[in-house]
Amino acid sequence: MSKHFAIIAGVGGGTGRSIALKFAKAYPVVLLSRTPTSYEATVQEINATGGQAVGISADLTDVESTQSAFSQIKKLYPEGHLAAAIFNAAALVRQPFLELTPQAFQQGLTNSVTAGFNFSQATLPLLLQCAQVESSGTLSPTLIFTGATASLKGSPNFAAFAAGKFALRGMAQSLAREFGPQGVHVAHSIIDGIIDTPVTKGWGFNGAKLTPEAIADSYWYLHMQPRAAFTFELDLRPSSEKW
Amino acid sequence: MSKHFAIIAGVGGGTGRSIALKFAKAYPVVLLSRTPTSYEATVQEINATGGQAVGISADLTDVESTQSAFSQIKKLYPEGHLAAAIFNAAALVRQPFLELTPQAFQQGLTNSVTAGFNFSQATLPLLLQCAQVESSGTLSPTLIFTGATASLKGSPNFAAFAAGKFALRGMAQSLAREFGPQGVHVAHSIIDGIIDTPVTKGWGFNGAKLTPEAIADSYWYLHMQPRAAFTFELDLRPSSEKW
Amino acid sequence: MSKHFAIIAGVGGGTGRSIALKFAKAYPVVLLSRTPTSYEATVQEINATGGQAVGISADLTDVESTQSAFSQIKKLYPEGHLAAAIFNAAALVRQPFLELTPQAFQQGLTNSVTAGFNFSQATLPLLLQCAQVESSGTLSPTLIFTGATASLKGSPNFAAFAAGKFALRGMAQSLAREFGPQGVHVAHSIIDGIIDTPVTKGWGFNGAKLTPEAIADSYWYLHMQPRAAFTFELDLRPSSEKW
Amino acid sequence: MSKHFAIIAGVGGGTGRSIALKFAKAYPVVLLSRTPTSYEATVQEINATGGQAVGISADLTDVESTQSAFSQIKKLYPEGHLAAAIFNAAALVRQPFLELTPQAFQQGLTNSVTAGFNFSQATLPLLLQCAQVESSGTLSPTLIFTGATASLKGSPNFAAFAAGKFALRGMAQSLAREFGPQGVHVAHSIIDGIIDTPVTKGWGFNGAKLTPEAIADSYWYLHMQPRAAFTFELDLRPSSEKW
Repeated sequence: MSKHFAIIAGVGGGTGRSIALKFAKAYPVVLLSRTPTSYEATVQEINATGGQAVGISADLTDVESTQSAFSQIKKLYPEGHLAAAIFNAAALVRQPFLELTPQAFQQGLTNSVTAGFNFSQATLPLLLQCAQVESSGTLSPTLIFTGATASLKGSPNFAAFAAGKFALRGMAQSLAREFGPQGVHVAHSIIDGIIDTPVTKGWGFNGAKLTPEAIADSYWYLHMQPRAAFTFELDLRPSSEKW
Repeated sequence: MSKHFAIIAGVGGGTGRSIALKFAKAYPVVLLSRTPTSYEATVQEINATGGQAVGISADLTDVESTQSAFSQIKKLYPEGHLAAAIFNAAALVRQPFLELTPQAFQQGLTNSVTAGFNFSQATLPLLLQCAQVESSGTLSPTLIFTGATASLKGSPNFAAFAAGKFALRGMAQSLAREFGPQGVHVAHSIIDGIIDTPVTKGWGFNGAKLTPEAIADSYWYLHMQPRAAFTFELDLRPSSEKW
Repeated sequence: MSKHFAIIAGVGGGTGRSIALKFAKAYPVVLLSRTPTSYEATVQEINATGGQAVGISADLTDVESTQSAFSQIKKLYPEGHLAAAIFNAAALVRQPFLELTPQAFQQGLTNSVTAGFNFSQATLPLLLQCAQVESSGTLSPTLIFTGATASLKGSPNFAAFAAGKFALRGMAQSLAREFGPQGVHVAHSIIDGIIDTPVTKGWGFNGAKLTPEAIADSYWYLHMQPRAAFTFELDLRPSSEKW
Repeated sequence: MSKHFAIIAGVGGGTGRSIALKFAKAYPVVLLSRTPTSYEATVQEINATGGQAVGISADLTDVESTQSAFSQIKKLYPEGHLAAAIFNAAALVRQPFLELTPQAFQQGLTNSVTAGFNFSQATLPLLLQCAQVESSGTLSPTLIFTGATASLKGSPNFAAFAAGKFALRGMAQSLAREFGPQGVHVAHSIIDGIIDTPVTKGWGFNGAKLTPEAIADSYWYLHMQPRAAFTFELDLRPSSEKW
């Protein structure tokens, strides 16, 4: 029986949920969100359909909260190997620059790269452990970050969001180059378009949105890549997107 | 029975062969190379193992030779739909700039972007046709170009090769934006490392090469992406690669 | 007599000093650093050679300290127009990722993008004011950020530094697009190499370093660009640099 | 008296003319265009206002025509040192991909990168010669290529133009890395917007165009950069440009 498991951070009703459902087909999954309301329905859905899921409330922008969550995780899977860790947390900030408060700007950074840092520091030791065990096999333990159009382009009124997303990408690149040779696959996905989620239902763009399922499939594909061909950056957009 | 088929241009003993084997699991495949010696063994291998393959000699740098090859293809599959077209042709040129002859520089361009242009003009009408038939389905007809490190970076002594690879990428971007909304998925892969082929066997880099199989799997994944999430650019490198 | 003035943040013995000397040939300059020891010698040098300079101690990572410094600046130049603001603060962090403390990572961000944010919020209203006054003239008020190789590439062991530098670039791009149409020129310079400063004297690389004077000249050039041709990103490296 | 001279390729009524006027303030200049009607007025203007200019008809897409032009140049300046060479030739192609003829696509390449190659092969030996003479001095012999938005982005209907411009940029990068350490400054400018020329007079965009004079000033600045701080890529756009 597989001792592998996966952790998905940032699970609400959209992309995070689909990623959790996808990875739950292969592994027990841990879902991290600030509040149970974000993950409860998805945890139930997975457990009700033959998978194994656990939800843990954690504020990844906070070091202690992160550490506390990972203490619980290690108790849950004392002999488990972390096969995949997905950082999908995000919080859009859009505001004219001179109307941004220092707090709002800081939030743009913290929700993105500080949370990503805390998540990476907690998961990389576990992923490295898994890489040692799997060194002769084909499974590559994987750390995936969700990026956005704003990871590559700072648009007007997006100073806070772009700062956070650029920073996350810079950190992810550094991690990919540092941990790739040790067998951990670090990847970054550019989600270049609107995702079809409960939140964006009313926005129009019919047939011109990314689906959470398609994103989840792509993340699974990244996880399946062998050491002989790792992708760092995967751009994803609807076929009709202007870019 | 499926009426789909695939065309792979640039088939020798390495990546092209593996791509052909991979796509032959799903479709009849047409292999294009300048000379039969390049594709014969792969055609036999596919036909001997339950697949369907045909080899056609064509010089894609030449318009008439390309048109002649596609006339044959249309006779072979009069009612077939082109599901995937892979442009994998390449020819490394590496030389100090002032030692390059105009002919050598021109070859660097012609073997890359002129051949890619001829291939695209011949395949896109067929891919568009397939997209119309498949518009309600999940198959996205796909055109994939093989790029290299030199697609993104012009290194010393690589003026001719980089010019050709940059040009191919620029054309591929334009095609992705023009034909994506019409349902054809155009993608470009950055092969960032040495590929393990008969040619590179003696080069060392053991365990630090891309495998043709892993590249082929990636191309198949690109082909499987639904309209809800197309990737334009996929970088691929061995886990141990410095980049 | 000119009512224009300039502010240079991050003045030590190297690049900041040369930028201050260069801009002091045209404007009174305000030098901002955490401690007087950083700016005193340069302030004296400028005042002793016919220029006008004032040093103000400020911690730009702190909102209140920044606001206090700008209160002093507005008293010094009650009718002055801010022609140029240069953000040159930096602090290299280089460490294996799993040895980084959360504090060290946070410092990497704070010293770069948080300080850059505070500086931008304080200077942009003054630069916009200047742009209105100069709207018919040729002077374009300018905000310049100093970037690095790590602004474009996250190398191993540079997670904290790259995160901060990527973030600063993302914010700078957003500001350029938001404030350019209002007449404020926002630019970002990629310093791609070792700068010849007192700190790097012993590092070797003779004849293969950037000089602070050449960087200062480039920043002045950016400031001189008319609205008809603004540069956002200027890469600078020694002729012998490998890149 | 200075033995330096400059060559400007691609001189019509717009940018090339302004570049020639700018460099003619310092050096005798040679103007290259296919037909005398392109350069005659500018040659007269320079000679009538105290400068020295010579026009030579040359088709840079053709090796022999290029060589013939450079034979004439060497006779004109037997002891001269080539201080600056500017490649400003271009020809916009904009067409749906499937309506492009192979000839039109080829023209897109030839007018851009083949002409750029021939020009580089003819000028680099002269620039290297100048670099040896100037090795202790401050003048850096310079080769500048004019790029466009399409150098970085392949837009729909721009396959031919983008292929040519991407290729030129790839070659220019390779040359910068090969010849920089030998003291020749190779640079590439991204002209990201409409230039205000006789051709574009009727297009609107008032006050939102690049001026040829501002571009010429930027090229002169690139030429003035010392070995301690070379810029490879300079983006230029009007302050009001959306990008």
